[in-house]
Amino acid sequence: MLTHDSTAQQTRRQHLRRMLWARHIAFIGGDTLIPAIKICRELGFVGTISVVNPNRAEIAGLPCYPSVEALEHVPDAAFVAVRSTQCVAIVRALAARGTAGCVCYAAGFAEAGHPQLQAELVDAAADMALIGPNCYGFINYLNGVSLWPDRHGGHRVEHGAALISQSGNITLNLTMPPRSLPLAYAISVGNQAMLGIEDYIDVLADDPRVSAIGLYIEGIKDISAFCRAIARAQANGIPIVALKAGRSALGAQVTLSHTSSLAGADRLYDALFERLGIARADSQPELLEILKCMTIASPIHGRALGVLTCSGGDSALAADFAHATQVTLPHLPESIAAELKLLLPAHASVGNPLDYNIGLWGDRLALEHCISTFMRKRTFDAVMLVLDYPRQDGSDSSAWDAAVDAMIDVRRKTDIPMMVASNFPEGLPVNVRERLCAAGIAPLQGLDTAIRAVSATYLARSIRAEPVSAPSLSEGTPIVLDEWESKQYLHDAGIPSPGGALYELHEALTALPDLSYPVVVKAVDRQFSHKTECGLVQVNLQTQEAAEQALRDIAFAGSRQLGYTPRLLIEPMIRGAVAELIVGVSRDPVFGPVLIVGAGGVLVNLFDDSRPLLLPTDADKVESALRALRCFPLLDGYRGGPKGDIQAVVDAVLTVASFAQQFADCLLELDINPLFVMPEGRGVVMADALIRMQVETSNP
Amino acid sequence: MLTHDSTAQQTRRQHLRRMLWARHIAFIGGDTLIPAIKICRELGFVGTISVVNPNRAEIAGLPCYPSVEALEHVPDAAFVAVRSTQCVAIVRALAARGTAGCVCYAAGFAEAGHPQLQAELVDAAADMALIGPNCYGFINYLNGVSLWPDRHGGHRVEHGAALISQSGNITLNLTMPPRSLPLAYAISVGNQAMLGIEDYIDVLADDPRVSAIGLYIEGIKDISAFCRAIARAQANGIPIVALKAGRSALGAQVTLSHTSSLAGADRLYDALFERLGIARADSQPELLEILKCMTIASPIHGRALGVLTCSGGDSALAADFAHATQVTLPHLPESIAAELKLLLPAHASVGNPLDYNIGLWGDRLALEHCISTFMRKRTFDAVMLVLDYPRQDGSDSSAWDAAVDAMIDVRRKTDIPMMVASNFPEGLPVNVRERLCAAGIAPLQGLDTAIRAVSATYLARSIRAEPVSAPSLSEGTPIVLDEWESKQYLHDAGIPSPGGALYELHEALTALPDLSYPVVVKAVDRQFSHKTECGLVQVNLQTQEAAEQALRDIAFAGSRQLGYTPRLLIEPMIRGAVAELIVGVSRDPVFGPVLIVGAGGVLVNLFDDSRPLLLPTDADKVESALRALRCFPLLDGYRGGPKGDIQAVVDAVLTVASFAQQFADCLLELDINPLFVMPEGRGVVMADALIRMQVETSNP
Repeated sequence: MLTHDSTAQQTRRQHLRRMLWARHIAFIGGDTLIPAIKICRELGFVGTISVVNPNRAEIAGLPCYPSVEALEHVPDAAFVAVRSTQCVAIVRALAARGTAGCVCYAAGFAEAGHPQLQAELVDAAADMALIGPNCYGFINYLNGVSLWPDRHGGHRVEHGAALISQSGNITLNLTMPPRSLPLAYAISVGNQAMLGIEDYIDVLADDPRVSAIGLYIEGIKDISAFCRAIARAQANGIPIVALKAGRSALGAQVTLSHTSSLAGADRLYDALFERLGIARADSQPELLEILKCMTIASPIHGRALGVLTCSGGDSALAADFAHATQVTLPHLPESIAAELKLLLPAHASVGNPLDYNIGLWGDRLALEHCISTFMRKRTFDAVMLVLDYPRQDGSDSSAWDAAVDAMIDVRRKTDIPMMVASNFPEGLPVNVRERLCAAGIAPLQGLDTAIRAVSATYLARSIRAEPVSAPSLSEGTPIVLDEWESKQYLHDAGIPSPGGALYELHEALTALPDLSYPVVVKAVDRQFSHKTECGLVQVNLQTQEAAEQALRDIAFAGSRQLGYTPRLLIEPMIRGAVAELIVGVSRDPVFGPVLIVGAGGVLVNLFDDSRPLLLPTDADKVESALRALRCFPLLDGYRGGPKGDIQAVVDAVLTVASFAQQFADCLLELDINPLFVMPEGRGVVMADALIRMQVETSNP
Repeated sequence: MLTHDSTAQQTRRQHLRRMLWARHIAFIGGDTLIPAIKICRELGFVGTISVVNPNRAEIAGLPCYPSVEALEHVPDAAFVAVRSTQCVAIVRALAARGTAGCVCYAAGFAEAGHPQLQAELVDAAADMALIGPNCYGFINYLNGVSLWPDRHGGHRVEHGAALISQSGNITLNLTMPPRSLPLAYAISVGNQAMLGIEDYIDVLADDPRVSAIGLYIEGIKDISAFCRAIARAQANGIPIVALKAGRSALGAQVTLSHTSSLAGADRLYDALFERLGIARADSQPELLEILKCMTIASPIHGRALGVLTCSGGDSALAADFAHATQVTLPHLPESIAAELKLLLPAHASVGNPLDYNIGLWGDRLALEHCISTFMRKRTFDAVMLVLDYPRQDGSDSSAWDAAVDAMIDVRRKTDIPMMVASNFPEGLPVNVRERLCAAGIAPLQGLDTAIRAVSATYLARSIRAEPVSAPSLSEGTPIVLDEWESKQYLHDAGIPSPGGALYELHEALTALPDLSYPVVVKAVDRQFSHKTECGLVQVNLQTQEAAEQALRDIAFAGSRQLGYTPRLLIEPMIRGAVAELIVGVSRDPVFGPVLIVGAGGVLVNLFDDSRPLLLPTDADKVESALRALRCFPLLDGYRGGPKGDIQAVVDAVLTVASFAQQFADCLLELDINPLFVMPEGRGVVMADALIRMQVETSNP
């Protein structure tokens, strides 16, 4: 695992930067180039545009060069719109000319079952930055540089949000709706044959005109590099939001065929985004609204939102929407409530949300006073007014404008982030949105989305990206260790085991008189997986006689399954546990080994009460994960019972984390289930354990 | 509890009907009437409009009558826009004239702390239908009748959806967005002093021009009457969708102060809606989109949705959105997939969702063939095409139109419901939506909402409204029965108890030699609630000696708490249960006694794995509720263990249901926790039970 970006990667990123800010662009191909060149010109591109086509005299009014070699200028950027089979030669020629970067528009590479052709393409590009293949390219709305073959809905801006997307069509769609969101960049990354999402983030993170970055993700190939790029963006104060497809099994399967990315388990992306402070959007409109909130009303330092509405219905819905997010709607301070009561009719119920409609509708001055009073004690980290304009039929909207003007008046005197949200996305006319944007108030379209946007902006407020390692697996053959072997490994690593010993049957029978009772008897063999269901475990054996009977029964049951008599594990019976947990490691194709903590024993399968922990981790993260379990109250002195030894649980989980990192190249799976949590001061004990790992094929 | 509507109610509903279809309208008040009269005229009202104002010669160009008594025509409907304190006299005068119904616009009644004034208003109205007070009134877009004081966004239609709302502002907002949804009625019900939501539903259910009914609900006052009205609407083939505020505690609290309705627990509304086949919307836009889907593409007979998209990204997102609904995206039949492969490029991945963009973009004939093929085997109960038009800048959209035209062509030849959905609400231009509506294809705005709309339309497809009883509580004093008393009642009702007997301490000690062991010992007293935590229970006592020690310990612990020695319950220890459940009854202020089944024992508080069952219930509903529990696998032969006696569980739950209904006027709470579920054929046993009930104050 690299903990920093390679020199080759750095060179390519420099080339990508030169490409995004290109002065000389070469367009290579046929009629596809006509709209692409038109778009570039319409955006006010001020550099040179050259066209390459060996068979045409002119395209889009420009004379054609017969070849890349014949170009007058070395291109900073080339748009390659030829068939997939012709791309390699063109890209090689571009690289040879010293071109900084190119967009490869054609599909028909890895996503269509031709990974070899894609590999050749990357090889041909060498140090040149290559966007795609199977992509739309990019538009730089800041400098007016476009290598983009289709429509788009953006325009030149001075600053704004950047879109980086693994779907060309979604990139295009995201530029279209007139949502009063300034767009700085739109980038369609295609198959990411060379440059991954992390490369674009890294480069855009250096542009101070970028207010926020929005990602459409189907899968991330290099988690570590992604983490580094996010950290860089956050260090520059750029918040990030991601729309990640593949929440559902079918959705994940579709993304696999779409971009040939490895998807990874969706809940691990949740864990990744949480760790990195990336907000997650659930739809395309939500992505844009979050970016708008981040662009206009960021940072939001806390969860406390104050809401002003025009009706009790809107107040109730706002409260319901907030409930499903990280946003809270705190009570008004008593003194503020008392002041507001003087401004409103006697029967108005004053609170948060505040229905200001009662009495103040249309009165700008009174509303300004009301909003200022509402905010005065800085109870709120952000303040939202809910307002839907009526249908724009030319009739007077001055009563609605009064509320907007009052917000703008208040905004001039405060640094608290403010927003105006409509229930319907179409509830705020474009001119109203523009006035709000100019005043530094975010006009958010759709009340549920608006409140999620505030929550997302809050979540992405701070710089906290920490590295996540995602080591790869070495070649080999998978084997399963038996319970005894697994426990030995883990015991040596520092996880307390019940003690006990492994015997052949005759040894076990001889040992019985010297044991302390009660005991547990189990059959042990690498071939056993579900011992309990197969009659290979008996617990709480109180006497020597009971233990002897159990040994004979289990040995017999085991022999029938194996064809030979299994070895037998006799352990002391552990009593008095306050809870049973599972601590495990599973291996994700993208994230590598991932720790899992959860409710153990019978609860594992029924309630799925578990949390993933990405590696590396630390004591705080482990304890947070434990406290997030629904079974946590069992550890915390449930119904007057003793507290569990939480410190020992944290230590055990960190021990497993170290173990997983130490054997990151060969560990396939690890399960301690159940881990008995004893009362405070009495530690933990692993009651059962299983390890699956990869071994060199010569050494099974 | 009335099982049918009273005569007075029926009379009022007849009056309400006459009012909604009014020929003679009286407007009573001052300048507030000007917009109201203007709106009524603009809608093409063809009857007579009279104005009453004792101090003005004319309003809105109409001469004023000095009083209600002086009116030439008896009004079918009157819009009363005077102060709250003047309303009673006006309403009494209207009733005396034989007016069918009136809208009382003023606020300042129960919602503002003046329930007495509201009671006087209702009294004054007598048999007249009274809408409000504290409401906007109604608009009948079918006949052109409007008693509405503010703007609205609707227009005359021949048929369409009806809105009934407990918030005036939300009613108004819902009429505004140009969403291509024909609106038949918009009704703001205000405080529901006389007429409740159920009355409006009942009346609109008879209008064959109503395609669907959308409700905005803060609380329902009369559950039984609501159920009857819903049944009536469904019998007439009218599907219902509700936006219910108060999912969150704060939201519920806000609704309480807003309309002074009793809210009831939100999850019981979920249960009610599920039982009645009412779809639930989560936001105002979603309410309208669901109504649109119901109006244009209803009924949808099954869950199977076929989706066609323009990109892999849209396909993945559609799959993710569907995953969170009742909609499924089934696989294409092999033969259909094979045919589609011939229509699409070799590398296209053919499935559902189907990304048709690859190869067919802009080709109407090919698309029609593709869509027809996709649908041919009737794999799908509905088919959705996902399409976002680019920004409407005057450039050519014929490639997008080709897809829409192909859908329209296919629609002509099939009865399968079809829809076109855009990712962005603004992704379908209004003219495109109109063409789709005219062709019987629902244009749905917002892909996530669109898929929820399909799911909602499917859920509301069938007539299944069944009555729910919500009996009220008699006056009295609450008492708690002790475990023994509670078990006796329940045992007599038919719930198996462990047996055992109740003793004074000295009796218990004497009884010990004759018992079979192991046993359980508990202290019993009406003052004990958490016995286990207080050392008042010991289980699994194997010997007489152990039981004797337990009796002494528990008697001592109980005496310390009570000041006297409690009686002692000795029961046989029940072993071999496959699961522990809770079966209970709780009392909701709106729903009355409600049954709860869930995971019992320690799991109750940690995992909240329970389901409410409204009364009356039956064996199918009980079994469905059990199967919906996450702990159900424990009953179903978990990990090779024995199956639980599910039939006995169902019987026990039905017994508790009967008990709850029998004592509906006095039962406050009932808990059987845990109910031990024994292996199949061995029944169930209540291990602990508690009953709280209301008794006549003279008989504590």
